[in-house]
Amino acid sequence: MSETTLGATAAAIPATMRVSLLRGVRDLVLDERPVPEPGPGQVLVRVSAVGTCGSDVHYYEEGRIGDFVVRRPLVLGHESGGVVAAVGPGVTRNHPGQRVSIEPGVPCFTCDQCRTGHYNLCPDMRFFGTPPVDGAFSEYVVVHEAMAHPVPDTLSDEAAALLEPLSVGVWACRKAGVGPGSRVLVTGAGPIGLIAAQTARAFGAGEVVVTDVRPHRLQVAADLGADATVNVAERPVSGFEPDVLLECSGAPAAIGTAVRLVGRGGRVVLIGMGGDEIPLPLDHVQRHEIQVTGTFRYANTWPTAIALAASGKVDLDRLVTHRFDLAEAERALTVAARDDTAIKPVVHP
Amino acid sequence: MSETTLGATAAAIPATMRVSLLRGVRDLVLDERPVPEPGPGQVLVRVSAVGTCGSDVHYYEEGRIGDFVVRRPLVLGHESGGVVAAVGPGVTRNHPGQRVSIEPGVPCFTCDQCRTGHYNLCPDMRFFGTPPVDGAFSEYVVVHEAMAHPVPDTLSDEAAALLEPLSVGVWACRKAGVGPGSRVLVTGAGPIGLIAAQTARAFGAGEVVVTDVRPHRLQVAADLGADATVNVAERPVSGFEPDVLLECSGAPAAIGTAVRLVGRGGRVVLIGMGGDEIPLPLDHVQRHEIQVTGTFRYANTWPTAIALAASGKVDLDRLVTHRFDLAEAERALTVAARDDTAIKPVVHP
Amino acid sequence: MSETTLGATAAAIPATMRVSLLRGVRDLVLDERPVPEPGPGQVLVRVSAVGTCGSDVHYYEEGRIGDFVVRRPLVLGHESGGVVAAVGPGVTRNHPGQRVSIEPGVPCFTCDQCRTGHYNLCPDMRFFGTPPVDGAFSEYVVVHEAMAHPVPDTLSDEAAALLEPLSVGVWACRKAGVGPGSRVLVTGAGPIGLIAAQTARAFGAGEVVVTDVRPHRLQVAADLGADATVNVAERPVSGFEPDVLLECSGAPAAIGTAVRLVGRGGRVVLIGMGGDEIPLPLDHVQRHEIQVTGTFRYANTWPTAIALAASGKVDLDRLVTHRFDLAEAERALTVAARDDTAIKPVVHP
Amino acid sequence: MSETTLGATAAAIPATMRVSLLRGVRDLVLDERPVPEPGPGQVLVRVSAVGTCGSDVHYYEEGRIGDFVVRRPLVLGHESGGVVAAVGPGVTRNHPGQRVSIEPGVPCFTCDQCRTGHYNLCPDMRFFGTPPVDGAFSEYVVVHEAMAHPVPDTLSDEAAALLEPLSVGVWACRKAGVGPGSRVLVTGAGPIGLIAAQTARAFGAGEVVVTDVRPHRLQVAADLGADATVNVAERPVSGFEPDVLLECSGAPAAIGTAVRLVGRGGRVVLIGMGGDEIPLPLDHVQRHEIQVTGTFRYANTWPTAIALAASGKVDLDRLVTHRFDLAEAERALTVAARDDTAIKPVVHP
Repeated sequence: MSETTLGATAAAIPATMRVSLLRGVRDLVLDERPVPEPGPGQVLVRVSAVGTCGSDVHYYEEGRIGDFVVRRPLVLGHESGGVVAAVGPGVTRNHPGQRVSIEPGVPCFTCDQCRTGHYNLCPDMRFFGTPPVDGAFSEYVVVHEAMAHPVPDTLSDEAAALLEPLSVGVWACRKAGVGPGSRVLVTGAGPIGLIAAQTARAFGAGEVVVTDVRPHRLQVAADLGADATVNVAERPVSGFEPDVLLECSGAPAAIGTAVRLVGRGGRVVLIGMGGDEIPLPLDHVQRHEIQVTGTFRYANTWPTAIALAASGKVDLDRLVTHRFDLAEAERALTVAARDDTAIKPVVHP
Repeated sequence: MSETTLGATAAAIPATMRVSLLRGVRDLVLDERPVPEPGPGQVLVRVSAVGTCGSDVHYYEEGRIGDFVVRRPLVLGHESGGVVAAVGPGVTRNHPGQRVSIEPGVPCFTCDQCRTGHYNLCPDMRFFGTPPVDGAFSEYVVVHEAMAHPVPDTLSDEAAALLEPLSVGVWACRKAGVGPGSRVLVTGAGPIGLIAAQTARAFGAGEVVVTDVRPHRLQVAADLGADATVNVAERPVSGFEPDVLLECSGAPAAIGTAVRLVGRGGRVVLIGMGGDEIPLPLDHVQRHEIQVTGTFRYANTWPTAIALAASGKVDLDRLVTHRFDLAEAERALTVAARDDTAIKPVVHP
Repeated sequence: MSETTLGATAAAIPATMRVSLLRGVRDLVLDERPVPEPGPGQVLVRVSAVGTCGSDVHYYEEGRIGDFVVRRPLVLGHESGGVVAAVGPGVTRNHPGQRVSIEPGVPCFTCDQCRTGHYNLCPDMRFFGTPPVDGAFSEYVVVHEAMAHPVPDTLSDEAAALLEPLSVGVWACRKAGVGPGSRVLVTGAGPIGLIAAQTARAFGAGEVVVTDVRPHRLQVAADLGADATVNVAERPVSGFEPDVLLECSGAPAAIGTAVRLVGRGGRVVLIGMGGDEIPLPLDHVQRHEIQVTGTFRYANTWPTAIALAASGKVDLDRLVTHRFDLAEAERALTVAARDDTAIKPVVHP
Repeated sequence: MSETTLGATAAAIPATMRVSLLRGVRDLVLDERPVPEPGPGQVLVRVSAVGTCGSDVHYYEEGRIGDFVVRRPLVLGHESGGVVAAVGPGVTRNHPGQRVSIEPGVPCFTCDQCRTGHYNLCPDMRFFGTPPVDGAFSEYVVVHEAMAHPVPDTLSDEAAALLEPLSVGVWACRKAGVGPGSRVLVTGAGPIGLIAAQTARAFGAGEVVVTDVRPHRLQVAADLGADATVNVAERPVSGFEPDVLLECSGAPAAIGTAVRLVGRGGRVVLIGMGGDEIPLPLDHVQRHEIQVTGTFRYANTWPTAIALAASGKVDLDRLVTHRFDLAEAERALTVAARDDTAIKPVVHP
């Protein structure tokens, strides 16, 4: 590690570290690996907290998401924060001891998509916890310094980790053009829906309505500031014409119904992943010139996400319902199936 | 007509005029009506040419389009131009003798949609040839002066009428963000597709590919400047990744296939009206963050359409394949079914 | 008033009303006039409150603003709200008894600027209190129904009136692209600066810094939520690189200094009216590709302004420092010169 | 050069190369240097043609531009094209023998400006021919593969070099929102003005008017397609209200006059560099809500520039008036002072 600039905390870097390895379907084990060394422009981060996400659960349960197949042991986890432990050659933006939130995708930086500011669409993106790239269920990770975003001390370790799902909400609200006075419908009150609803309010939305079929989730949405909640298992949304729909349920049947509610010139952003071919009410889309798009991760969202979380406009800590040690990662991935009050289980390596 | 400011041509205004009336399904007759008088802010236009459009044919054949039902005799026709014959009180933008192209929809001008520049979405729009508003298969029509756009003498009467479908193309290219270097796929080489392809080139598109299943139409597309044409009955589009799809076929099966071709960050604009619920490959839309929208008529397009047609960048005259007198309006509406070389039949009242 | 639909309150409409008339420089008198009758599409509003604005003071003191010269007696006042007293023929959006905020400029609605959504740039705009159009220092005014915006009962009469200056702030923040996390510098803590700073926060700005040379004003700015204030008579702004400058001082010397602070890709919106030719540091503007523009009134801002004020995100009531009867209008226009704690004097007709 | 992947042409790479060195004010000498080796992700380009630009002349005559001072011998030249001679490790986008146009600025790719698509504003930009970075008056140059843009064989070597100034025009037209039907005023018919005028037409502008005080330049502008030219030494522009002003003269006096011509909602883009503090008619800017900005180089323009030049919509070859060998670089930099028909002298290394 001769090339690495080490700070006062460097003495604490061990030679090996614990990682949680997904070896196959429902086969997660604790393993030991050498602590990696940061290359030029990279930093080594000691991970403080890692949120679990539906895609982690999906890999655990199915061993794949679409074309991404777990072919060799994989470290899951892409919602993470920690403390810089060491920096590689040429690093100027970080220093050991700096608390950071990790943006988990590193693009090539130089292709057309990257150069035009849409680096989330980079074909050569390397994304944490997505085969074959390891994630953050690990005591240490190495990441490009540009992706280790310093956070203020007012943000908790868990909030630093959850800036990743907050980024999903920020990106969706940008795509949807949410602004002061917007009327926003959020379908689905899972973690992303709950964050999207808060983000919409932070963007100035005048009215935010959240739908789901789980009363507990709707209660959390109301607690976090939704103007109204609707249990669509009981009654349809009525008397509300949104100009923005943030679709977070991924339920094909729900999408069509929700799109029909959107008013003239409205915007629909599909965040939840549904199936492939989904029937859309194109007649409504055409007559009202509604814009429909989807989000694929995010780009340039961390500065905004940090500002929203640090100012208290978005409450991320409230979403953390369960905490686990790295050795308990499997329980973190399965708790939601057992406990329907679970929103965001967090692993502390 | 005492309040009307009459020009030198006023003496020529007769008391009655011929109109072509749709009385029911496939029931079109020539009738006589009083020449209307222009109210405040309105002008009376002697119609020189009226293009026939698929929606005219649809009303003729079905007596309805969706919720719009022909309940009492209706004058069809909304692609028209002519000469101002008289102006109503307070008119300042036009004068008798002025050649004009008629924008066939008059919005309320003061609702939220109108005031924000999206007057095509005005809920109180009154649109020519759409029940219960009469259109331009008529010797004279009255229209708001703001909708009687002066045209240069270099534009033929027929081109002045066809600024209406050109407006459809302009609006679609604006919505799609067509610009210098854009790669554009136009699906469907009917009149709108042929215009959309030309408009895309006029907007600076670097490559325009047109698809259809009719060889004759594809030949016209090539003659009008398409860089390539593909007969999708014979082979699929390959080796071309458009960043813009202008869907002009209205064929549900074609839409999904075409959307899958669109590259990262691309835009899809649905111009042709397909059915209501159409399956869309949302997985592709999400992963590539493609924007999908539809057009509903147009707003603020005439100045651009006039500039494009007057400069020769778009050739409208080339689209006129058949010409009829007002008494032959029924033949104009049925010629396309008999003659597959028909593109745009025009009626001269 | 036979054509007017009168509500329950109609009996209360008197034949004449009091108005405050500007007859010349520093010559304001109370006069009596017939209560006007609303024409088609118009409403008659009994005025509850009228804010005074710098331009009112300017007309009072100078008899002109630029090319607008007071040539015959003029009613000042353009920040107003009230209660609908009667409606003219065809009015559908309002009814007697409705509390409204008045948007004081009525455009032609049909010119190119109006049709593209920029009606504030309509060459035929008729604007309250601007020669030769009378304003709201009057017991009743008539206005187009589209400009009488219903307000919720949670808004005070004074806040309803002050939605007009709030609209200035909304328009400026829109032009400047203020959004979540923006760093905003507001130069000048007069009424507009104090509103612009609050509006920027409501648009999600992460940091808002306000400058002035008057300690009292800076204290109010801090009370209303500015993150920092700087008395530029004592020290320059340092350590803050805004991405947005909202220039509300109108002081030519201040503009150049402030523009130099703006970071790469930043936006400068000039709200305060300075002189004609003002030296701008174009070298800085070019190297950092800063966008500089100015605002001229506003367009389509009331819905947003209502949402911001009704939700409490912007506090308009806090700005009202003095209250006067219509008979005391002259004192309302001169109080600021006598009392430097004056921010927004309001007249209650 | 062991790590370099060499193609068939590799044998031709000599050990040393000729460069033209600026040693001080008006002190340009031919020198010999080792041919550089491309590092990871870089390519070595044998330079075919280099355009001379006003900034090259300025460095030659003054030894500095603003804060950029020539402190040690510098190679000038930033408008260049050539043939890839060798590629460094990991290069995938180019191969030896590929004809390329060189984008002469390499940003850091990972800072906030780079990641949001504004890499021209990168504070760590390394730009050809700008102290202390050497340029292209040299037989070979090394550049990042992302900045070596392949060009079709239909483009001449000189046109490939002149894609750099064309990029200036593309960037300006994008910033100005030039589109179909735009009315554009170009002030100054130097090389950039002549290119900007052509680019505006290629973006669809409906009317392009060019001003200058040199009749010869105005004649070239007319030959290249300007709709009208005005010699402002003889008469002012009249009867033309542009919605876009592309300022290419850099003459402070001209800027104010031209800005006053711009219509409501118009855009002004300052391309030519004038002095620092320049008086702007801010009253006009505010009342008409004109947007004023400047350009600093360009970002993501090459694909569009290649499309415009390859399609013939912009004629770059016509601008080349003089040709010199590398040994004659000094004559290339001084010919414009001697010969007022000079537009773009090109050096062939």
